[in-house]
Amino acid sequence: VSYSLSGFCFFFVTCKYNVNIFPDFHSPPEENEDPYNLHDAPKNLDYVVKIKGGIPFVYDNKEMMELNEPRSLPYPDLETYILDLSHVLALIADGPTKTYCHRRLNFLESKFSLHEMLNEMSEFKELKSNPHRDFYNVRKVDTHIHAAACMNQKHLLRFIKHTYQTEPNRIVAEKKGKKMTLKQVFESLHMDPYDLTVDSLDVHAGRQTFHRFDKFNSKYNPVGASELRDLYLKTENYIGGEYFARMVKEVARELEESKYQYTEPRLSIYGRSPDEWLSLANWFIKHKVYSPNMRWIIQVPRIYDIFRSKNILPSFGKMLENIFMPLFEATINPKDHKELHLFLKYVTGFDSVDDESKHSGHMFSDKSLNPDLWTSEKNPPYSYYLYYMYVNIMLLNNLRKERGMCTFLFRPHCGEAGSITHLVSAFLTADNISHGLLLKKSPVLQYLYYLAQIPIAMSPLSNNSLFLEYSKNPLREFLHKGLHVSLSTDDPMQFHYTKEALMEEYAIAAQVWKLSTCDLCEIARNSVLQSGLSDKEKQKFLGVNYCKEGPEGNDIHKTNVAQIRMAFRYETLCNELSFLSDAMRTDEISTLSE
Amino acid sequence: VSYSLSGFCFFFVTCKYNVNIFPDFHSPPEENEDPYNLHDAPKNLDYVVKIKGGIPFVYDNKEMMELNEPRSLPYPDLETYILDLSHVLALIADGPTKTYCHRRLNFLESKFSLHEMLNEMSEFKELKSNPHRDFYNVRKVDTHIHAAACMNQKHLLRFIKHTYQTEPNRIVAEKKGKKMTLKQVFESLHMDPYDLTVDSLDVHAGRQTFHRFDKFNSKYNPVGASELRDLYLKTENYIGGEYFARMVKEVARELEESKYQYTEPRLSIYGRSPDEWLSLANWFIKHKVYSPNMRWIIQVPRIYDIFRSKNILPSFGKMLENIFMPLFEATINPKDHKELHLFLKYVTGFDSVDDESKHSGHMFSDKSLNPDLWTSEKNPPYSYYLYYMYVNIMLLNNLRKERGMCTFLFRPHCGEAGSITHLVSAFLTADNISHGLLLKKSPVLQYLYYLAQIPIAMSPLSNNSLFLEYSKNPLREFLHKGLHVSLSTDDPMQFHYTKEALMEEYAIAAQVWKLSTCDLCEIARNSVLQSGLSDKEKQKFLGVNYCKEGPEGNDIHKTNVAQIRMAFRYETLCNELSFLSDAMRTDEISTLSE
Repeated sequence: VSYSLSGFCFFFVTCKYNVNIFPDFHSPPEENEDPYNLHDAPKNLDYVVKIKGGIPFVYDNKEMMELNEPRSLPYPDLETYILDLSHVLALIADGPTKTYCHRRLNFLESKFSLHEMLNEMSEFKELKSNPHRDFYNVRKVDTHIHAAACMNQKHLLRFIKHTYQTEPNRIVAEKKGKKMTLKQVFESLHMDPYDLTVDSLDVHAGRQTFHRFDKFNSKYNPVGASELRDLYLKTENYIGGEYFARMVKEVARELEESKYQYTEPRLSIYGRSPDEWLSLANWFIKHKVYSPNMRWIIQVPRIYDIFRSKNILPSFGKMLENIFMPLFEATINPKDHKELHLFLKYVTGFDSVDDESKHSGHMFSDKSLNPDLWTSEKNPPYSYYLYYMYVNIMLLNNLRKERGMCTFLFRPHCGEAGSITHLVSAFLTADNISHGLLLKKSPVLQYLYYLAQIPIAMSPLSNNSLFLEYSKNPLREFLHKGLHVSLSTDDPMQFHYTKEALMEEYAIAAQVWKLSTCDLCEIARNSVLQSGLSDKEKQKFLGVNYCKEGPEGNDIHKTNVAQIRMAFRYETLCNELSFLSDAMRTDEISTLSE
Repeated sequence: VSYSLSGFCFFFVTCKYNVNIFPDFHSPPEENEDPYNLHDAPKNLDYVVKIKGGIPFVYDNKEMMELNEPRSLPYPDLETYILDLSHVLALIADGPTKTYCHRRLNFLESKFSLHEMLNEMSEFKELKSNPHRDFYNVRKVDTHIHAAACMNQKHLLRFIKHTYQTEPNRIVAEKKGKKMTLKQVFESLHMDPYDLTVDSLDVHAGRQTFHRFDKFNSKYNPVGASELRDLYLKTENYIGGEYFARMVKEVARELEESKYQYTEPRLSIYGRSPDEWLSLANWFIKHKVYSPNMRWIIQVPRIYDIFRSKNILPSFGKMLENIFMPLFEATINPKDHKELHLFLKYVTGFDSVDDESKHSGHMFSDKSLNPDLWTSEKNPPYSYYLYYMYVNIMLLNNLRKERGMCTFLFRPHCGEAGSITHLVSAFLTADNISHGLLLKKSPVLQYLYYLAQIPIAMSPLSNNSLFLEYSKNPLREFLHKGLHVSLSTDDPMQFHYTKEALMEEYAIAAQVWKLSTCDLCEIARNSVLQSGLSDKEKQKFLGVNYCKEGPEGNDIHKTNVAQIRMAFRYETLCNELSFLSDAMRTDEISTLSE
């Protein structure tokens, strides 16, 4: 027991550097403001930045750089991270700790069952007497969705047909120096868009994609043709990503009309070149992609190995530099990077994406090569990616905070498949994870995620097509125990059938798991809390005191979550925490008296 | 074995009087035709009708009635029905037959699995190369839905609020001789519609309704107030059912816009009074409720006992007379019943509805009192209701066929709960049933329903809230074995969350059971076949040869069902039937040689 408790002591420490309690997000522009105003960039500071061994160093000026005296921006160094990692790894493998956590989780589940049996009707009574607010008009955020799959298959089909009907003779691509019209593109693929159906489009995941992430990835190619993916689903192509922007904006218009739904689509930055950022910012500004109902997240695919094998990159360090250097520059000298500075106002976080089930042969340790020396074709392991992204984001955030600029959350995909150690890395570094399925397999980690209330954006329909049957999905169980879960769609293009993907996600969860209205509204409230919506918006959607814990932080008139439920959650969490701190005190006393 | 085979001999016989192979439905009016044209009623025949002991007799004229010489309109008499009933009851309880059917059903399921493993990709390839048709634009019919719950909860809420905003001072009700405005109605209920939410509306089924049909029924009362049910969800009230008609028409407009969806809503005839029909027809005509995407079914609640106990009816015979006499009259003398004659063009069948789990103490036999003598407050059993409805519908159909008028199907709720003997009664009498869940419990009945290809409209989301968890629903298994199943919503108001209830039903089935596109399109095709759409429409939606069996009857360009699938279904059914007929022949020979 004493080991497990010291483990939890450790938890109280790590947990401190883990959770970014007050993230700073940019409030959306007022109605009379221009969301694309490039002229309010703050002054340049002319700091100098260098990314060395994957770690950014910021100097006041060139002289300071030569003296090697960087500005003090705190971050956990590699030794600390590796040490913490090994601590948690030991903790989750420790027998007594496992038993302890397993029992606490069982207790939490039974306690909720009891709560439900006793208070279900009272909760519903509270909701029934709550005027003008129900599940349909509480705010919901789709906390995990990829922009390139944010439209459903029918929408994409209709859009392709529409472009073909209205502008067949427009030049839309260039192949081997030859310009091609839309008509020629389809001719080269031997197809007539009139005959196209969702079947021949073939972007929907089916039984064939189960445990086949590779097949799933190829579903991003309409009709199996990467040409169409490039033309319709990319921000960089001959037409400057116009088609993609138009579709994204159609999705945005629907959200704005539905009024209560928000979404956080992921756009890719690959790290092949430092120009990607400017290009993305220009795409955003040129096509006026801003929507009050969308907040953007940047996803970085973990595919260094592919770029390295094609000799696009010399080292992993260069990839990190390509990803983060432009951000430091735009933060330090916004007047020289007006477009990127503007775009970053609407970006609220970073995601790390790829197939987690791919096994990595490398074990991250303090003996691992640093990113500049990582020049082999082998892909670094998950924990390595996470540490270096985390450090860069943290340093960037510190710098931006100093300047009063908005900061970024780190919200990696984690625990969808593969090793449960991914969840350990994310526990130390992430503000928020997507999936978290594998918490099912580790009681200690699950309990830690509960105690730290780390938000988890779950997508059971996505899992159902890829990794875990719907009925086996742990969402319901996590919700009951009190983990901070939300519902998200991941890829409406691949998974959903109806026009309202997020509602479909909620409806199926409600039906299959018989969730009550209070459950649904609790999930919706969680989704707003987890999201990158600004403080101002959260106050509007959840109540002015939303930062406070327990029923005090809940405005039932806005959230439609029963206060009885809020009180139960709060008391339960306090109880678990005080139980632990009491035990630790006893432990200290007994250690002292020994 | 010989008993079981003779049982199946019997099946081949009964099956003949069971299935109405060529029902006659009225083709919808052309675009330039007036759907409410009252002037094309055929001439009166002045036959005389008498319903005696629950059986209608039609005479050429008064004289023939006095001579007691009715026209010859065939129907199975009570003795035959009771005998057949006892035959099938013996069959489903016979050990060897049970084993035999159980094995055949297992075989059918395994055979489909094999088919799927071998041909899944080929089926999908067929669909991919099928131009311009996919799951979204094949026709789907919602084969089982109650008109009073055909809008979703949000729709009803919006409608109530809208009426309150636009016409608060309209007189909409009369209570104890006092006329009341809409405002006064809400005041008397102590509520302000502005504050109303889907929670306080409380029409959605939840965990509380599981195995509680009584609670479910009370969900038809918005805010628990029967006043609002009367005002908004009834065809007969102070405002002549205007609100209800307006909502139904809003649902119809959405269907017409979506283009590919049709629905068969149930309207109630209770049998309290013979005037109900005229009132319903007038409601239909006055509010112009006709929609090309709707075909109507009349539901008769099995609640004689309630009317009897309130002394509204003297006997069960009177209830039958109230239900059927007006139909005979409108059929014989349409010129005197123009409204009803018109309305009946758009009615395609009868449903029998109520809580099947209510146990009936009475065992139907040839010693049971006939309907005219059934004057006690006890409700007749399910089989009694079904027989008398069946006979009346059959005689009515025969008469209407003689006159070239459209006929009616008998499509009772059956096998949702209660005794499996209901499925025996329906096997002998129904064209088509709703639910059929309990076929799960009887291999013999399930096999018989398979052999006779009796259509089953299943509503797994409804079952999930009332009688059987989604994951345990047999729909997937029935579909695999080749039973003729369709998907339907039952009560969108109580069960569904999204705006597109039928799509929600399909989406959830597709996701939870991982149905392929071919599966979904097969279900959609079944739904059109089962429906009351006219021959002309079925030709248009399924192909001109839709009546033919096997791949010949399938036009993939219209149905998007792979021919490989059609061939598999056809061969499998032929194989089962020839297997039986071979065995019967062998059986006859061995009997002869004994």
